[in-house]
Amino acid sequence: MANLETNDPSELAPTRDLAAMASGLAPSNISETARRWAKHCVLDWIAVTVGGVDEPLTRKLIDVALAEGAIGQARIIGHPEKLIASQAALVNGAASHALDYDDVNQRMMGHPTVPVVPTLMALADEIPIDGESFLAAFIAGYEVEVQLVDMMGLSHYDAGWHTTGTVGSFGAAAAAAKILGLDGQQTATALGIAATQTAGLKAMFGTMCKPLHAGKAASNGLLAARLAAEGFTSRVDAIECPYGFAATQAASFVPGAVRPDPAAPYAVEENLFKYHAACYLTHAGMDALQQLREENRVDPAEVIAVRQRVKPANFSVCNIQEPETGLEVKFSMRHTAAMTLFGIDTGALASYTDEIAHRPDLVRLREKVEVIGDDRLTSRMQAEVEVDLADGRMIAGFADCGVPAGDLDEQERRLTIKFHSLVSPVFGDNRASAALDACLDLDSLDDVARVFDTVTG
Amino acid sequence: MANLETNDPSELAPTRDLAAMASGLAPSNISETARRWAKHCVLDWIAVTVGGVDEPLTRKLIDVALAEGAIGQARIIGHPEKLIASQAALVNGAASHALDYDDVNQRMMGHPTVPVVPTLMALADEIPIDGESFLAAFIAGYEVEVQLVDMMGLSHYDAGWHTTGTVGSFGAAAAAAKILGLDGQQTATALGIAATQTAGLKAMFGTMCKPLHAGKAASNGLLAARLAAEGFTSRVDAIECPYGFAATQAASFVPGAVRPDPAAPYAVEENLFKYHAACYLTHAGMDALQQLREENRVDPAEVIAVRQRVKPANFSVCNIQEPETGLEVKFSMRHTAAMTLFGIDTGALASYTDEIAHRPDLVRLREKVEVIGDDRLTSRMQAEVEVDLADGRMIAGFADCGVPAGDLDEQERRLTIKFHSLVSPVFGDNRASAALDACLDLDSLDDVARVFDTVTG
Repeated sequence: MANLETNDPSELAPTRDLAAMASGLAPSNISETARRWAKHCVLDWIAVTVGGVDEPLTRKLIDVALAEGAIGQARIIGHPEKLIASQAALVNGAASHALDYDDVNQRMMGHPTVPVVPTLMALADEIPIDGESFLAAFIAGYEVEVQLVDMMGLSHYDAGWHTTGTVGSFGAAAAAAKILGLDGQQTATALGIAATQTAGLKAMFGTMCKPLHAGKAASNGLLAARLAAEGFTSRVDAIECPYGFAATQAASFVPGAVRPDPAAPYAVEENLFKYHAACYLTHAGMDALQQLREENRVDPAEVIAVRQRVKPANFSVCNIQEPETGLEVKFSMRHTAAMTLFGIDTGALASYTDEIAHRPDLVRLREKVEVIGDDRLTSRMQAEVEVDLADGRMIAGFADCGVPAGDLDEQERRLTIKFHSLVSPVFGDNRASAALDACLDLDSLDDVARVFDTVTG
Repeated sequence: MANLETNDPSELAPTRDLAAMASGLAPSNISETARRWAKHCVLDWIAVTVGGVDEPLTRKLIDVALAEGAIGQARIIGHPEKLIASQAALVNGAASHALDYDDVNQRMMGHPTVPVVPTLMALADEIPIDGESFLAAFIAGYEVEVQLVDMMGLSHYDAGWHTTGTVGSFGAAAAAAKILGLDGQQTATALGIAATQTAGLKAMFGTMCKPLHAGKAASNGLLAARLAAEGFTSRVDAIECPYGFAATQAASFVPGAVRPDPAAPYAVEENLFKYHAACYLTHAGMDALQQLREENRVDPAEVIAVRQRVKPANFSVCNIQEPETGLEVKFSMRHTAAMTLFGIDTGALASYTDEIAHRPDLVRLREKVEVIGDDRLTSRMQAEVEVDLADGRMIAGFADCGVPAGDLDEQERRLTIKFHSLVSPVFGDNRASAALDACLDLDSLDDVARVFDTVTG
């Protein structure tokens, strides 16, 4: 990579350098830690996709694909139908983002896994892919997404683009290119073909088009890599060229060396997982209260008052005082706080019902919760909580759900709970456990398609 | 349409109004003239698509579709394979733009037909579509494209977007929505789903991605309409909403009433056709010389000198003085002028060979051609020519290929020549004539799929 051998910024060629990084990334360069993070991403992806299989948007995408006869050999999570790879990538991508319960990378300003894994899963149903290659391709795609956003800063997201759809296409293209064995030049071409297809408007948040973006990114990236493999032409400087991706879609673009320190952790090692099936900005409060409850064996009947401090900016997002529906509960810091103190499984989709919004004991506890704006907090993902108890004690806690986990065993424990919570109701405990074990064993598999056997068909 | 009943600009809602216009456009509202223009567009589309069937990019797209098993019932021009509709739209769309010989609308700043007809053709292989409905859907899609660009002015194209890919997606969505019988609200949703998929960078000109944009627009629009028909949700104000299509992709956006004068001609009636298989900016010179040659029975041996005046801006595009290859000939005003005076068929793809670049009599005549920059001309699509003859006469002419044809019979005559020139070498004269007749008779057909019978399979 020329950029590593020079300090001359004119030598930087982000498209070429991202492509070289991705195509050159060998399983032997990947630490055991990075590999474990990647497995956690795949594991979580399966869980949230199973959670999204019965969403109306997923069904509609399958119906449209079936109506045009897009039958193939690529499987769909949670459904018996098999589609052609590009349609399966579209459906699985949208399904996995349907609940907005999938993982997040703060630097990417989006959801890194949903555009990439569906593409790899579709390819795995065509050609055998061993576990190490699968994880390397996933890590390469993830890294492309984050490094590309690094160069644009906030300017891309702020302009109105849904990074998951736009930048996600590049990640999917890079990952697919790797599985197809493309070299650096061909991968740069794949990134170019991705660049000219990439789309997704933030304005669509709140509609079925938001999850569609993840599916489109997956299928656009797959097409890009396949066309590049066939010798289709594109610019190999599509990101940085005049009128290119950056020029049209980012007010600021500062080309930088791609992985200037090759020994640094991969971006996948800063992935954030959601453990509550509610708005992300309610999570820190729930995390802090859950920890207090467990450490102090809090009896909700003994709670006199709860004070939860968050950034005032969160008020406009998730501060519904008296939610009436399950959906509103997801955007109520007060109600989710009460649910947490009662030990209700906030990770289960089934917990967010209209009944729970009206359950008398929860409503009584919710009325004791005060949400306070506090600008001393440095992030919207932080919460400080204080609980006054009937015995006179005041217990206090803090959580920041914007910090990647330091303890991978603990992360795995929490992801396992989430996995069972989403997968067991659909497939039963036995199949859920088998799927989980396969994910955790992914890097030792000769054919990763086996991972998907338990959650398809 | 609310906007027609009020002068209050706050009542304008471009997405809704475009959708209402498209879904409300009935065959009975379409004049015989507009219908004839639309038939000319379809006729020309078939001709240029047949011309593009053997281009490498077309073959690569077919191969990628076949490799994933995208077999279906939708036909591809010039090929025996049948694909699923979305893939057939992709392939036919790209093939029709492969030669850059397809039609143009100056207000759209792009190619109006290539994103729309492939979508309609794919649908016609699934459900019977009568000729009048087909033409009405085409005219609606075309109108959506042009009216949308009208509101953005140059700001969208100048920002780096290839309008054929971006705005073309809206046209394809509107046309498909019409065939699927969607109402105004559903069509607005389809436009929203199109808006969030739409892409295509001008930076890709000169690569296979440029034609790909037309194909992607066709398949994106088809998906948008099908999803809207299934009840998929999107914003119904996707064009004008905050962070919407216009906000992200046009520096200027002035919402206007959609077809404020319902009696005005449709935009299709200003379509421009290419009659020479060379750069569009060489066309006016060829048109002017061709007319002089025919009117004066010019013998090329008697030509002493030729002066061709064009806007100096054209020099940077197509003023190669001594072309060495067939491709360079397409960008040489001098050589194409000489070819015209010799009566060579400048509409035939086969005329642009390396041999013709070196043919001695052409080279000798080309040396007598002087191209002069002249800013008195008001458009880059104009040329003024003067020819000095051996008998002492000086004959002069002028052409403006940016002016839509006034004489539809003459247009049809020229399109017929172009049609035969492109289709006969592939399918023979008899099938070419049958295809041409079917196009010209399109509005009386019960099932337009018949039009494509002669150029598929």
